[in-house]
Amino acid sequence: MSAFVNQLDTQGNLKHFLTIEGLSRDLLIDILDRSEAFLGVARQAVKKVPLCKGKVVANLFFENSTRTRTTFELAAKRLSADVLNLNISTSATAKGETLLDTLRNLEAMHVDMFVVRHADSGAAHFIARHADPHVSIINAGDGRHAHPTQGMLDMFTIRQKKPDFAGLTVAIVGDLLHSRVARSQIQALNTLGTGEVRVIAPRTLIPAQAESLGVRVFHSLPDGVRDADVIILLRLQRERMSGALLPSEHEYFRLFGLTEKRLRGAKPDAIVMHPGPINRGVEMDSEVADGPRSVILEQVSNGIAVRMAIMSLCIGTQNLHQSTNNQDQAHG
Amino acid sequence: MSAFVNQLDTQGNLKHFLTIEGLSRDLLIDILDRSEAFLGVARQAVKKVPLCKGKVVANLFFENSTRTRTTFELAAKRLSADVLNLNISTSATAKGETLLDTLRNLEAMHVDMFVVRHADSGAAHFIARHADPHVSIINAGDGRHAHPTQGMLDMFTIRQKKPDFAGLTVAIVGDLLHSRVARSQIQALNTLGTGEVRVIAPRTLIPAQAESLGVRVFHSLPDGVRDADVIILLRLQRERMSGALLPSEHEYFRLFGLTEKRLRGAKPDAIVMHPGPINRGVEMDSEVADGPRSVILEQVSNGIAVRMAIMSLCIGTQNLHQSTNNQDQAHG
Amino acid sequence: MSAFVNQLDTQGNLKHFLTIEGLSRDLLIDILDRSEAFLGVARQAVKKVPLCKGKVVANLFFENSTRTRTTFELAAKRLSADVLNLNISTSATAKGETLLDTLRNLEAMHVDMFVVRHADSGAAHFIARHADPHVSIINAGDGRHAHPTQGMLDMFTIRQKKPDFAGLTVAIVGDLLHSRVARSQIQALNTLGTGEVRVIAPRTLIPAQAESLGVRVFHSLPDGVRDADVIILLRLQRERMSGALLPSEHEYFRLFGLTEKRLRGAKPDAIVMHPGPINRGVEMDSEVADGPRSVILEQVSNGIAVRMAIMSLCIGTQNLHQSTNNQDQAHG
Repeated sequence: MSAFVNQLDTQGNLKHFLTIEGLSRDLLIDILDRSEAFLGVARQAVKKVPLCKGKVVANLFFENSTRTRTTFELAAKRLSADVLNLNISTSATAKGETLLDTLRNLEAMHVDMFVVRHADSGAAHFIARHADPHVSIINAGDGRHAHPTQGMLDMFTIRQKKPDFAGLTVAIVGDLLHSRVARSQIQALNTLGTGEVRVIAPRTLIPAQAESLGVRVFHSLPDGVRDADVIILLRLQRERMSGALLPSEHEYFRLFGLTEKRLRGAKPDAIVMHPGPINRGVEMDSEVADGPRSVILEQVSNGIAVRMAIMSLCIGTQNLHQSTNNQDQAHG
Repeated sequence: MSAFVNQLDTQGNLKHFLTIEGLSRDLLIDILDRSEAFLGVARQAVKKVPLCKGKVVANLFFENSTRTRTTFELAAKRLSADVLNLNISTSATAKGETLLDTLRNLEAMHVDMFVVRHADSGAAHFIARHADPHVSIINAGDGRHAHPTQGMLDMFTIRQKKPDFAGLTVAIVGDLLHSRVARSQIQALNTLGTGEVRVIAPRTLIPAQAESLGVRVFHSLPDGVRDADVIILLRLQRERMSGALLPSEHEYFRLFGLTEKRLRGAKPDAIVMHPGPINRGVEMDSEVADGPRSVILEQVSNGIAVRMAIMSLCIGTQNLHQSTNNQDQAHG
Repeated sequence: MSAFVNQLDTQGNLKHFLTIEGLSRDLLIDILDRSEAFLGVARQAVKKVPLCKGKVVANLFFENSTRTRTTFELAAKRLSADVLNLNISTSATAKGETLLDTLRNLEAMHVDMFVVRHADSGAAHFIARHADPHVSIINAGDGRHAHPTQGMLDMFTIRQKKPDFAGLTVAIVGDLLHSRVARSQIQALNTLGTGEVRVIAPRTLIPAQAESLGVRVFHSLPDGVRDADVIILLRLQRERMSGALLPSEHEYFRLFGLTEKRLRGAKPDAIVMHPGPINRGVEMDSEVADGPRSVILEQVSNGIAVRMAIMSLCIGTQNLHQSTNNQDQAHG
């Protein structure tokens, strides 16, 4: 994670998508605008565009996640790419050399993109640093570090409902200490000039230097959600319970679980978000999850469009407008 | 299984395919006629039609079955759909809530069809009842309840050889008590007006109210196959042996196994069917399985065509005739 | 392995690709020439040709190998074929009858090609002997017998660097006794009229009748590589160590591992090859593996092109030239 990887190529175009840190506001806006166009693809009779036809996307999942892998697989297939799903056990890659040989082999097969998920922070950067110049890397979650496509789909979802970031108060609730999702969200929210970014968490689940990230820290849910426009709940990793960090799920819900009653402190039109999968009765109750303010399933739909936008920016052969025209002709 | 799910949409078109029960004779005939057209696709140089191009079919197999999943995967790919194979462990879905959240997520990704296989009777109905209106569900086998695509491919195979159901005597041999295949076959045979439907099984493997299904019950193979036009053997689940239901495979074969000698009691042009995979020397001997009356492999070929017909009826964008013309132009 | 299978059809065209043994020099040259054309496909913006569009390739891997399966999967997808990945546990096929029923079923689904990998020598021949006439079989490695596509990609890589086989000295180093790769390489090298083929191995890892294969045997690495143009290192299967065949990896490297120093005995422009995956510090040190004479990654790239050539020769619907023209029109 230490060494620098330029995510842009020499022409200033997106080459890798490893972290939101360091990306410009203009680039984030560009990604959001393109995602808007891709959202329409899912509503077409033929949900496919040929932007990445003949390209090969390899899902390198060192950490198992059917759910995330499926979203990347669908995004790639809607771009007409071919997809290789490679489950690589972490044990086989304990020797770094073997991992590099694996990468070299996939590069030699002319794979165009690696979508990397790994339990270690910095894994996607490591791979990007050692990859052949023709390969693009997307970080699909590395340790506690970053999950930038999740961060962008959350920004997209917020902008759909609340177009002006400058006027917004966004509260992120949960295990800040271990959350790569929160890290990417905070970077994106600040880059987009969000009015106020708050984090709400028990003292044991908040990093020591939290304020330096550009957030206001709260340890009480009622205080933190007051007048918020957006409330983002983080998934509670159940394995944290076994340590001394949290007393119990029940106790967590009592203090930090979102209920309709607690939502009343927020703005009347506040939206509720969650990266999924939800632990019902832990991060929130079902009334909230399935209620009118929840945009959780819209996040999922938006995730495909945002990933299509990012993947096609990195390896697409033409722009969506041209492609949509071709598509129309082909199916007209 | 109790609550009613309408398998047709408001225009009377097929939306789900969960069970043959309640479907009209005309609809079954329509499916068989369309399957006929799809049979030709497998003989084309390019075995593909674009009827479901851009559609996403998710195989939700809670019960493992490479064989059945492969037939649906091939049928979907021949229709130019994209296929997601999701192996969902039954344990993860013990909590019904989690299953629904999984479904909601896949729906949000604009998946168009779920092909569901589950060890519990009624699982596909449950999913259809809770699914978003834009999603179609196909039942690929649920508990002891139904396996309707298998039922339809069996009807298709019978009609290929013996076009007039009214004149036929069809005998189903085996474990009627646990067979979802038999249940779907009996419903289809009766809906299509089959002359006589017989079931032949040991007393321990036949449901108490068997006659109410519209069948004649036999406990002797020679009696049951006498003058039959079609003999359908059911697969014997070997796990039944461990219970008290059956003495041994050897004993089963002695009493209910089909041999060339026993086939002599049937019509001279009788055909022999089996849903596969065969237990040779249990349900029948190899001489019958590989003999001239066996249409077992034709059932497999027909299965792809019948599944293409049903899938495209549910989610296809145009009809086969148009599509075949486009195909011709594209490759002419 | 005993019974004869004709790899050519009645018109003399390639039908199966099971072994290099018995194939003519002209056919091997034809495959190499076609592979040359396919190498260009990987450099196109759209890395796809429609030669096998609508064809179904089933990867039947009885022996697990993600790496080899991926190369066949990519080759098939670049030819626009649909791919089924079937992992068949060896236990399920202990009964030969079940394997044949599995094959019959896949044939009935109109699968066009089986790519077979199996721990038993002769498995691919067995399948070819029993397969339906419309199905092509490619041997992706059977026991100690043959790995002919690996052999051909090695020939292709040699010819790229050293076009005239007659003038070459090629040294193969390693476990000759268990290597299906070496067996295929030796057959191809001799068919192509290679000047001298040497094998270098410890006495315990060389077959008794080695000279009868048309090779010169060496037991000393320095002697064997002297003035060689091409040095092919075989992968050392680590499980051999547990037997009495080899003392230790360290000892193997000391005697047979390739180092820059030892390479000095070869021709100044000698190339170094390895079928992968490399055991660094066993077959060679990293200086050689990553050095200027190593063509190991080019072998990987070439492997896709060679497999595309062989697969399209067996089941392609038109030739590459026509197809490339269509492609140009479609994307022009």
